[in-house]
Amino acid sequence: MITRLSQLFVRTLREDPADAEIPSHRWLVRGGYIRRVAPGIYTWLPLGLMVLRRIEQVVHEEMDAIGGQEVRFPALLPREPYEITNRWTEYGPNVFRLQDRKKGDYLLGPTHEEMFTLLVKDLYSSYKDLPLIIYQIQTKYRDEARPRAGLLRGREFVMKDSYSFDVDDDGLRAAYQKHRGAYIKIFDRLGLDYVIVQAMSGAMGGSASEEFLAVLPNGEDTFVRSPGGYAANTEAVRVPAPPAQDASGIPPVQVIDTPGTGTIAELVDAVNASHPRSDRAWEAGDTLKNIVFMVEHPDGSREPLVVGLPGDREVDEKRLEAAIEPSAAVPFGEADFAAYPHLAKGYIGPVSLSSGEPVQVLGEKAPYGIRYLTDPRVVPGTRWVTGANEPDRHQLNVTAGRDFTSDGVLDVAEIREGDPAPDGSGPLTLARGVEIGHIFQLGRKYAQALGLNVLDENGKLVTVTMGSYGIGTSRAVAAVAESTCDDKGLCWPRSLAPFDVHILATGKGQEVLDAAEQLAAGLDAAGVHVLLDDRKASPGVKFADAELLGMPTSVVVGRGLANGVVEVRDRASGESTEISVESAVDHVARVVGK
Amino acid sequence: MITRLSQLFVRTLREDPADAEIPSHRWLVRGGYIRRVAPGIYTWLPLGLMVLRRIEQVVHEEMDAIGGQEVRFPALLPREPYEITNRWTEYGPNVFRLQDRKKGDYLLGPTHEEMFTLLVKDLYSSYKDLPLIIYQIQTKYRDEARPRAGLLRGREFVMKDSYSFDVDDDGLRAAYQKHRGAYIKIFDRLGLDYVIVQAMSGAMGGSASEEFLAVLPNGEDTFVRSPGGYAANTEAVRVPAPPAQDASGIPPVQVIDTPGTGTIAELVDAVNASHPRSDRAWEAGDTLKNIVFMVEHPDGSREPLVVGLPGDREVDEKRLEAAIEPSAAVPFGEADFAAYPHLAKGYIGPVSLSSGEPVQVLGEKAPYGIRYLTDPRVVPGTRWVTGANEPDRHQLNVTAGRDFTSDGVLDVAEIREGDPAPDGSGPLTLARGVEIGHIFQLGRKYAQALGLNVLDENGKLVTVTMGSYGIGTSRAVAAVAESTCDDKGLCWPRSLAPFDVHILATGKGQEVLDAAEQLAAGLDAAGVHVLLDDRKASPGVKFADAELLGMPTSVVVGRGLANGVVEVRDRASGESTEISVESAVDHVARVVGK
Repeated sequence: MITRLSQLFVRTLREDPADAEIPSHRWLVRGGYIRRVAPGIYTWLPLGLMVLRRIEQVVHEEMDAIGGQEVRFPALLPREPYEITNRWTEYGPNVFRLQDRKKGDYLLGPTHEEMFTLLVKDLYSSYKDLPLIIYQIQTKYRDEARPRAGLLRGREFVMKDSYSFDVDDDGLRAAYQKHRGAYIKIFDRLGLDYVIVQAMSGAMGGSASEEFLAVLPNGEDTFVRSPGGYAANTEAVRVPAPPAQDASGIPPVQVIDTPGTGTIAELVDAVNASHPRSDRAWEAGDTLKNIVFMVEHPDGSREPLVVGLPGDREVDEKRLEAAIEPSAAVPFGEADFAAYPHLAKGYIGPVSLSSGEPVQVLGEKAPYGIRYLTDPRVVPGTRWVTGANEPDRHQLNVTAGRDFTSDGVLDVAEIREGDPAPDGSGPLTLARGVEIGHIFQLGRKYAQALGLNVLDENGKLVTVTMGSYGIGTSRAVAAVAESTCDDKGLCWPRSLAPFDVHILATGKGQEVLDAAEQLAAGLDAAGVHVLLDDRKASPGVKFADAELLGMPTSVVVGRGLANGVVEVRDRASGESTEISVESAVDHVARVVGK
Repeated sequence: MITRLSQLFVRTLREDPADAEIPSHRWLVRGGYIRRVAPGIYTWLPLGLMVLRRIEQVVHEEMDAIGGQEVRFPALLPREPYEITNRWTEYGPNVFRLQDRKKGDYLLGPTHEEMFTLLVKDLYSSYKDLPLIIYQIQTKYRDEARPRAGLLRGREFVMKDSYSFDVDDDGLRAAYQKHRGAYIKIFDRLGLDYVIVQAMSGAMGGSASEEFLAVLPNGEDTFVRSPGGYAANTEAVRVPAPPAQDASGIPPVQVIDTPGTGTIAELVDAVNASHPRSDRAWEAGDTLKNIVFMVEHPDGSREPLVVGLPGDREVDEKRLEAAIEPSAAVPFGEADFAAYPHLAKGYIGPVSLSSGEPVQVLGEKAPYGIRYLTDPRVVPGTRWVTGANEPDRHQLNVTAGRDFTSDGVLDVAEIREGDPAPDGSGPLTLARGVEIGHIFQLGRKYAQALGLNVLDENGKLVTVTMGSYGIGTSRAVAAVAESTCDDKGLCWPRSLAPFDVHILATGKGQEVLDAAEQLAAGLDAAGVHVLLDDRKASPGVKFADAELLGMPTSVVVGRGLANGVVEVRDRASGESTEISVESAVDHVARVVGK
């Protein structure tokens, strides 16, 4: 098929869209692949839809290859199933909700675990029916607080989601491995540089899960890798706790005056000046920073939470979010401080001395009953400089396990390049990526909640165990674009490009256009998908558009005709070769693999 | 590819679903093609999705053949464009609305005129860019008051919608004809018996429109045909007005006592008894029935409307609905009668004699200012028995044009078999159908509202003229099923069946299963899509399921094996033929056209 640019429904833009944050977003909009309709909501123009279709075809083939059967659920879903699993509440504002004309509650499906579970319950009843893998490629909705980067984080997007159903854990593990293998094939075929990392299960629930991250500096996920092969999303990293320390030689708690030391840096300077250490200077890591949040639960209730962590680390907001999901942490405002007057802003500490005797002020069993969770590094015997719960005062020698205990561990401090890897194999390195796939061993959570049981070989009712597996197909378009584009535009891999070759008729004569048409016809006959730039436009415009649109190979039919040659350009390498007009069809067909 | 029924995600049901109103709905659910999630909202199981895909493939091919380019819009759409065209209001409760987390208003797109118009405005600016046809196959939403008949009237459904853009009316007409031609090819390929009828444009606006109706007794549309070839949806039928009549010989209005004649039948009996006609008995058609409704406008305002029509006809609710759309007529309740005491329930008439002089009580310029519209047959000079606006009294000799005038014509009386056709070619016949396609000449309504202009050849800005063209692809699945099924189940045409052939291994020995597998393998190698019933089930169950699932050809491998034959059955005709095992592959491949 020959598609003429003069007829194709596309317009390239010379200006960057105002909201374009990353190159792929910029180029996909400027190249006329997509158009924004509302925040995080896009229209696919013909070129974009072609790429999406090619990616979906790969996904279909690999899902079929592991025995997946395709179904299609509605996007508009009734509240009841999500009520039973509590996700109606847990999703909070992240889900689009609506009422129909009869005031029935509905949501726009962000993911379909409940619906698939109920469908299998509806149809199946015996272990003989399993194992089963069913999937759909379907439009999904999520009311993101911050839609960004075009297709990378949208509010309406396309996903392949599949679900496995097995009678036992071995079956689930096998289905999980099948999907893992299929995903590896899919992302290999998409030509993406990706890593498989340990992940948090989040709102999905379940036990084991891994993410496929496309390695991209503009990705919004951060992941770590160790020399020994450990890899995890930073949200999933579990910082190893050091061994407990001997506290016998630590002097008792000493309250000191530290006026105007609301920040860690000011505190370190103050104690170095007033109470210098003999061995070395005080450092931020010697302090125990206690940060208070207000936690909002899905049911609307709120409670304060104090997190204690070494003063040289910040709380990683995404790690915190993932750790306490489906609850959310919001800043502790002035009104909150007013309501909890014993929390001295900037001077919060686990132990108070106001009565003359040590009294723990943080912890659920402490007098004020405020939940207190600490970083894994705050093990018994560690000694800290920390707040005294009075303005302008701190405490020295506050020792974990001796002077205070916390209500548990909350592992939400930032992960740093060089931190020791959990697998003990050395320092961690950090990189950024885009989540393109996620595989979960859900286990029996949904089957239990919704009553999906089957009779086993012995006629006994057993709860089915499930897996859930997603690929963001619309996001994959952006990930591929982002990983291949350059400063001139898009640059598609051959397997995903809307067209195999882009022919540019540059020059004014009819002769040029005829030669270009003839080449196009020859290639078309050879099964090559041709985009022919037959517009009345300058060579400069055509060259720029060819680079922007990003077909892997282009052929310039123009000046060279006088010498009987055309110019074949490779978009990725930028290399160009002169080829005789006679051999052009054969040459180009060979180059594009036809 | 061979699909084994033991592996296929399907379960057939022995019982009819409780809500199944028509055969196709019953069989599609019982055959495991679809499953209900909520009223008018369905899940596609593998078999159903295969049929939908095949239909969509036909639509793609024919749309591509007329130069349509595919795009895909979101379903979640912002309010603003629909506000500009007033459809945000006009759709009333028929559209699903929702707010995002920032309280922005959105709707789930019922159709995309506004969005397509804005997209073309965004990309195009010159007459050289046109003509243009763009389309999508996409999920749409409509909050139907009465979703029914499974896929026939759903609330979430799949549609192909295309839009044409032209600089002038000739262009629009050409695009319209192109679509008309493509639709004829599409519905021919789907094997549907259909008619093309004149239609109302409804909420879409625009001038000319035609519907493609699949002729089905269970359809919810009624259409008429004349001997001369006139065909129209009853909603679109314009009843011809007879010529005005000479009223000079008609005696003056006479008020008569008609106690207890709140119905037309009672009235006719009463006047035949008290004031018999000399020439013949009074009939219902001699009376002028005045029916009052409360009209609700999209802006929320309400006003009474009285419709006058011959007493032998009822108001056709669908014709009324179509005629006054986007407003809606609701029954005039007791409270309404109390608020309008001069409307005597059961005795409403256009003229009152309470003052001793004729006073028109209906009509916008009449004392009570109530809008009064009459049937086209109520022409000047026609003489009626009608209400006197007083309980238990009527009037004789009330003559249109002499004693009353109405505010206009409202053509909403029922159309009857045998009514004269508007084209004068004889009596109308009525039949029922399902709307499977609708083509509109929209004209400039949307382009004007949204500012879609292009420069013409002379550099002058002209408003683009548009067409809008829809095919309900999910509804087409039901229409095909409904038109082909019988009392045993589904019966797909070859071009749309999920599988070409259904092989039944009936019998217990391994030999039977081996022979069936061998036949399946042979057919698979010949490019035939095979469904193989390899389940451990009785022959009776397998026969019943084969008839329910409806593949066009089935092959029974069983008892006949002993004699070296298999049985080839044709689902539609029920005919069966014995074929030798050796020639079975060739024979079946030929039968299914491979």
